[in-house]
Amino acid sequence: MLLAKVIGTVVATRKEQSMEGLRFMLLRQVDLDGHESGGHVVAADVVGAGPGEMVLYATGSSARQTVATDKRPCDAVIMAIVDNWEVNGQIKYKKGAE
Amino acid sequence: MLLAKVIGTVVATRKEQSMEGLRFMLLRQVDLDGHESGGHVVAADVVGAGPGEMVLYATGSSARQTVATDKRPCDAVIMAIVDNWEVNGQIKYKKGAE
Amino acid sequence: MLLAKVIGTVVATRKEQSMEGLRFMLLRQVDLDGHESGGHVVAADVVGAGPGEMVLYATGSSARQTVATDKRPCDAVIMAIVDNWEVNGQIKYKKGAE
Amino acid sequence: MLLAKVIGTVVATRKEQSMEGLRFMLLRQVDLDGHESGGHVVAADVVGAGPGEMVLYATGSSARQTVATDKRPCDAVIMAIVDNWEVNGQIKYKKGAE
Amino acid sequence: MLLAKVIGTVVATRKEQSMEGLRFMLLRQVDLDGHESGGHVVAADVVGAGPGEMVLYATGSSARQTVATDKRPCDAVIMAIVDNWEVNGQIKYKKGAE
Repeated sequence: MLLAKVIGTVVATRKEQSMEGLRFMLLRQVDLDGHESGGHVVAADVVGAGPGEMVLYATGSSARQTVATDKRPCDAVIMAIVDNWEVNGQIKYKKGAE
Repeated sequence: MLLAKVIGTVVATRKEQSMEGLRFMLLRQVDLDGHESGGHVVAADVVGAGPGEMVLYATGSSARQTVATDKRPCDAVIMAIVDNWEVNGQIKYKKGAE
Repeated sequence: MLLAKVIGTVVATRKEQSMEGLRFMLLRQVDLDGHESGGHVVAADVVGAGPGEMVLYATGSSARQTVATDKRPCDAVIMAIVDNWEVNGQIKYKKGAE
Repeated sequence: MLLAKVIGTVVATRKEQSMEGLRFMLLRQVDLDGHESGGHVVAADVVGAGPGEMVLYATGSSARQTVATDKRPCDAVIMAIVDNWEVNGQIKYKKGAE
Repeated sequence: MLLAKVIGTVVATRKEQSMEGLRFMLLRQVDLDGHESGGHVVAADVVGAGPGEMVLYATGSSARQTVATDKRPCDAVIMAIVDNWEVNGQIKYKKGAE
């Protein structure tokens, strides 16, 4: 899984039928300090993540291992909202403390 | 999924039999402002996307989760045409407003 | 799928038994003008591609969706020989016109 | 699989239900000398790895081939703790000898 | 599949149970001339490859399509030992002629 920040949303009316009802969130990867860096990706959201939140997302076939994404042409899913992470014993990100 | 722009088409007469009837679109990834940047990829189209349109495409086994691509040697599929996206509350791309 | 040029072949006598009979082609990715650029990869060939030809190849589990590669430890397959492609309405590559 | 060092942990209370009970470890890839370099990734731990340890992790659908990760939206798993590795006959890393 | 050179081995006593008995080889990708360049990866060996040999390895779910790696958290496998390869009609690597 990768750490990313929810930076926006994508609207797509015309889409593969099975994707109806899924929310597309725009994510940008973050570095170990929580700063945006690296690429952006669009992921389906199954945990109710909102803009500005730090999340974990899974890609590939693993992105289909949820009830909402099963058997759908979806290759990225937000599967967790991050509370905090630490590196070498130091808290590097804590939700609400940015 | 990744944001990309349909920039062209690929014609291939000689191909794996199961790929007959699939349209190959040439896509180029775009940055958050919708400008072409990054790599290009060839994706099967199952939503009727046309040149110049912004789309979402899925890769890997997820690209086979549509009726048209099921069990085929296809690793990228356009599964949505993008209407708009926003970043940090600002519309960055809106179809027809380019 | 990615656009690539067949630049050579790989011979491997000692291999996983199920790979017997598959031809290994050496491919190099090309840019939108058809010039070699980017990485090289070894793909099984199921369409009779030859040296110098432009092809499309699929990777990952999608590479196993052909009779010849099914259930084999093969992660890249040439599944089409390219006749031509166009970008923004202009033919950028046409077989035989190089 | 890739060589990486366990550099921290990630806490996520709100997550896809099936991910309950899995520990998320923060890994950073290492070079052949064992120095941190390259990207970071979050992996589930099924072997009891701790901070500072060198590990091997598997990604993609292979990350789901353990009892703890089966059918879960998990795309990276620590599946081994490294004792040592050698390059061209020389020990480059040995646990406890750093 | 990718061309790589076996540059070493990795020892891991503590590992996911199903990985018992698999040998972990340290590989480094090579360029078209056979020189080490690019990234390193750890692959299971099912063809008896030894240090210094040029090999082909497959990744992802394809790495599990061998008797020894089936249903295991293994995402890279050496599935062939390379005898030689040629680029544009010229032998670029020949086993034993380095």
